[in-house]
Amino acid sequence: MNRKAIFHLSESPYSYPTSQDSFFFRLRMAKEDQDLKVTVYYGNKFFLREMKQPAVMKPARTDEEFVYFEAEVKLNDNRVGYVFEIEEDGHTYYYTEAGLLDSYDYHECYKDYFEYSSVHPEDIGDTPEWCKNAVFYQIFPDRFRMGNKNKDKSYITMGWYDKPTPRDFAGGDLRGIIDSLDYLQGLGINAIYLTPIFKAGSNHKYDTLDYFEIDPQFGTLDDFKELVQKAHEHGIRIVLDAVFNHMSYFAPQFQDVIKHGKQSPYWNWFYIHGDEVNTEKPNYWTFSIGKYMPKINVTNPATEAYLNSVVFHYLEYGIDGWRFDVGDEISHSFWRQLRAKVKAKYPNALILGEHWHNAHSFLRGDEFDGTMNYPVTYAIYDYLIYKKFSAEKEADTLNRLFTNYRIQATMACLNLLDSHDTHRFFNLANQNKDILECAIALLFFVPGMSCLYYGTEIPMDGAFDPDCRRGFPYEEAIKGSPHQDLIKELIKIRKTPDLSSTDFLAYEENGLLVIKRGDTHLYMNATDHDIAYQGEPICSHNYENGVIKPNGFLIVK
Amino acid sequence: MNRKAIFHLSESPYSYPTSQDSFFFRLRMAKEDQDLKVTVYYGNKFFLREMKQPAVMKPARTDEEFVYFEAEVKLNDNRVGYVFEIEEDGHTYYYTEAGLLDSYDYHECYKDYFEYSSVHPEDIGDTPEWCKNAVFYQIFPDRFRMGNKNKDKSYITMGWYDKPTPRDFAGGDLRGIIDSLDYLQGLGINAIYLTPIFKAGSNHKYDTLDYFEIDPQFGTLDDFKELVQKAHEHGIRIVLDAVFNHMSYFAPQFQDVIKHGKQSPYWNWFYIHGDEVNTEKPNYWTFSIGKYMPKINVTNPATEAYLNSVVFHYLEYGIDGWRFDVGDEISHSFWRQLRAKVKAKYPNALILGEHWHNAHSFLRGDEFDGTMNYPVTYAIYDYLIYKKFSAEKEADTLNRLFTNYRIQATMACLNLLDSHDTHRFFNLANQNKDILECAIALLFFVPGMSCLYYGTEIPMDGAFDPDCRRGFPYEEAIKGSPHQDLIKELIKIRKTPDLSSTDFLAYEENGLLVIKRGDTHLYMNATDHDIAYQGEPICSHNYENGVIKPNGFLIVK
Repeated sequence: MNRKAIFHLSESPYSYPTSQDSFFFRLRMAKEDQDLKVTVYYGNKFFLREMKQPAVMKPARTDEEFVYFEAEVKLNDNRVGYVFEIEEDGHTYYYTEAGLLDSYDYHECYKDYFEYSSVHPEDIGDTPEWCKNAVFYQIFPDRFRMGNKNKDKSYITMGWYDKPTPRDFAGGDLRGIIDSLDYLQGLGINAIYLTPIFKAGSNHKYDTLDYFEIDPQFGTLDDFKELVQKAHEHGIRIVLDAVFNHMSYFAPQFQDVIKHGKQSPYWNWFYIHGDEVNTEKPNYWTFSIGKYMPKINVTNPATEAYLNSVVFHYLEYGIDGWRFDVGDEISHSFWRQLRAKVKAKYPNALILGEHWHNAHSFLRGDEFDGTMNYPVTYAIYDYLIYKKFSAEKEADTLNRLFTNYRIQATMACLNLLDSHDTHRFFNLANQNKDILECAIALLFFVPGMSCLYYGTEIPMDGAFDPDCRRGFPYEEAIKGSPHQDLIKELIKIRKTPDLSSTDFLAYEENGLLVIKRGDTHLYMNATDHDIAYQGEPICSHNYENGVIKPNGFLIVK
Repeated sequence: MNRKAIFHLSESPYSYPTSQDSFFFRLRMAKEDQDLKVTVYYGNKFFLREMKQPAVMKPARTDEEFVYFEAEVKLNDNRVGYVFEIEEDGHTYYYTEAGLLDSYDYHECYKDYFEYSSVHPEDIGDTPEWCKNAVFYQIFPDRFRMGNKNKDKSYITMGWYDKPTPRDFAGGDLRGIIDSLDYLQGLGINAIYLTPIFKAGSNHKYDTLDYFEIDPQFGTLDDFKELVQKAHEHGIRIVLDAVFNHMSYFAPQFQDVIKHGKQSPYWNWFYIHGDEVNTEKPNYWTFSIGKYMPKINVTNPATEAYLNSVVFHYLEYGIDGWRFDVGDEISHSFWRQLRAKVKAKYPNALILGEHWHNAHSFLRGDEFDGTMNYPVTYAIYDYLIYKKFSAEKEADTLNRLFTNYRIQATMACLNLLDSHDTHRFFNLANQNKDILECAIALLFFVPGMSCLYYGTEIPMDGAFDPDCRRGFPYEEAIKGSPHQDLIKELIKIRKTPDLSSTDFLAYEENGLLVIKRGDTHLYMNATDHDIAYQGEPICSHNYENGVIKPNGFLIVK
């Protein structure tokens, strides 16, 4: 046994309640120790010695280095003490807060058992049930579709199919989305993530000027209300995007501070060092660098109240949740108070944070429901595009990522291939449609919400921002295509109970990447040679006569 | 290199800000890898590739299995990305969120560097500065001293020096403590932790009847105010004990619920299953088991507001903090809101939670300042009393415990040898005064606040509750003794800057346990034989002619 490989931490993704009366245990050990027998003895911590119950732990998944033993149990009491017993060569070892012990006296277990001191309903951190089968479609409104043909078009600076520059306006609007709901419903998606729609200076609207006004380029408040209503009629949820990390330099609050200095009522809305704003050599915190995105001081009670009111304003119009831009750079204390207030009134509202890394500290159940799951994105790149990862390494990586968060959070993370902030996947894949199709299938088999960036169904091309934000060819899209049909078929499978379940395992088999979700299995070939596999697929791509070709896959149930 | 031994987690005791512009990094590796060179490259996460700075990490401490590499750095930017580089046999390995890598391209580091996305003042979790040299004296009021000789003594059921039973009252009161402040000041202690003083049915007062009334057995509100004022005049802080996990069965709120059922305004103050209270077969959550301590539903806004008002009521009288009974069984969300409110008004008020285990989930800076540090207590038992631990194992254990929390929390944990909830240490040590004296010295060298249970300076004897709660012999105490003199001497040393610093290292040397705090070293002999050590002690016990005898120690600076 590699003693030093053993890891467990109470109240973490290794030890948490999945409901008021069920509990999940995970113990990490060295991969080569996966044949050992591991049992967790658990029970009311006050009477662990007398009343402990055993649950044999399953070596549920492995990665490059480790095996993860897991067990989910029913609780008889919400005050949980527990000890792991590991059997090797007829000897039993005990793993407790005091480390790995050769012998153990349960009479003294109160000193060092692991504990989850008390399961409280409010600390479980439920995430919306609807996340489990959510298939999002991300829309960048200026580039999706122009619906209002009668509007003042003087702000438009590019032809719809021109190559965009950072400052171009193309004319897309909310009416264009409303008019496309039949099409979107036809694809099978059931949620839309809209990048910001509030009044702002740029085409992307991440430089908010007024959170309470729909940007006139995109339409009116009535258009917005109609969009929410009609989307719901189409079985499609609406998630908006808010930028609370910073405002536009030109927002009236910051302009007031520039003008009136410390006399401004908005002085404490920002982080300004000194007695007045220096716009030449910025003396205030900003997003990234530069002067144009002053960071908001969310700790100021007035700012907190203002931002909270933005959140509730649109929830009251019936939206289904928020994606928060640069969520990782906003303080934990802000998210905690916001979540508590939102979930008290709208338990099913999604709180999704932008975070590109291991976001465990925001996903303990008291801040975000989930995050944009870029670590999964990169793992798909490395396997399907860059071929840096073998099937085994891909399985290892997906299994490892799966252990980073509690299952409630994992199911509410947004898995994506690309976004307005990346190259389009199709571009990175050198316009290889087979690779994109494999990627979509794989994406849908990763636990969590799925998201397709607008135009993936064409597929649209585009390098990094602004090229990834080209005008969507609606007329072409509604004609359909075999590519689009495959996506529709995959979305249907994505919404079945198996792929909405918490069951997940990735492994390698004969050079194929295999992902198991319930009884449904994905077999994928990212090698450069054919691999034989006999199955009766419910969906397949590049599969013929018992052979999965390179960049092909098979789904069996 | 044992790859599987490597551990790091961002936003944890392995990665946290120590102030707005300083940051602490820890990387765990296998003990046998302590000679490898480890460097952390860190900087503004947006420009890590271009602007990263190296900090060589020190193999700062070891335990049985691991070495902990540590570095504290100054930050130039509050958005922190970082990568560890490990050199072995001329090859450099890179440790990132993607694991241990044989090679690395910093051009792509944005994909998998570790990050602490943004340091915000409100998330640093400062703990009171005064904790660093706090030496507490814990008082169980019914048994410390009777000061008010004119009171109605009819409730008293035992002679002062009788062996107490669970239900006896001895007559101690606040006046007795006020009258003993000169004595306590003379000992050198600078804080008193008082077990509950609010109106309750028992001698221990953990069964609160009315949080807003000083128990008449102990005195009046005026006595309490006088105690706070005079203690402060003596340089002694006052920390009170509150029971928020449960109330007394006889509290008017619970009685109202028994009487009026769901019609009671207090129905939602508890966790009652069903439509009425069943006191025969309790159908409500309680502390431990039994019917007499109904658990409080702190999630109910009315209850939350009530308990908050208790906290502020006494803070307004000038107390210096709270110890919260059964803190570990109260929900995180309650503690978060309470801390935010308390610290906004009373940043120096101590928030100390009862928690007997690894309390990391309560010590992230948003809930408790610190906890009762029983894991340290047990480590001292195992080394000095039970001789289960060698000096090396003791050093390993203390080093390991030191890595469990961020330093801010470690410095605010309350280290103790015993309490009203344990045997007296002197009793466990079979009345061996030498062992007790070693334990006090060792206790004072462990980072965090120190606490002596009343009577340790006699030393008083007593087995488990209620025997550990005997009447304090004040008249004997004020006469002094060599034992008391040694404690006074140790307290003086405890309050020097070295022992108030965050510097700490435990190790074994020639059979001795050595603890280094700044330039001050403790050398302790818990073996059964003499050990030679040449030094010029500033304090010693059982040390003669260059020899530390069994249960002896030496402090050098």
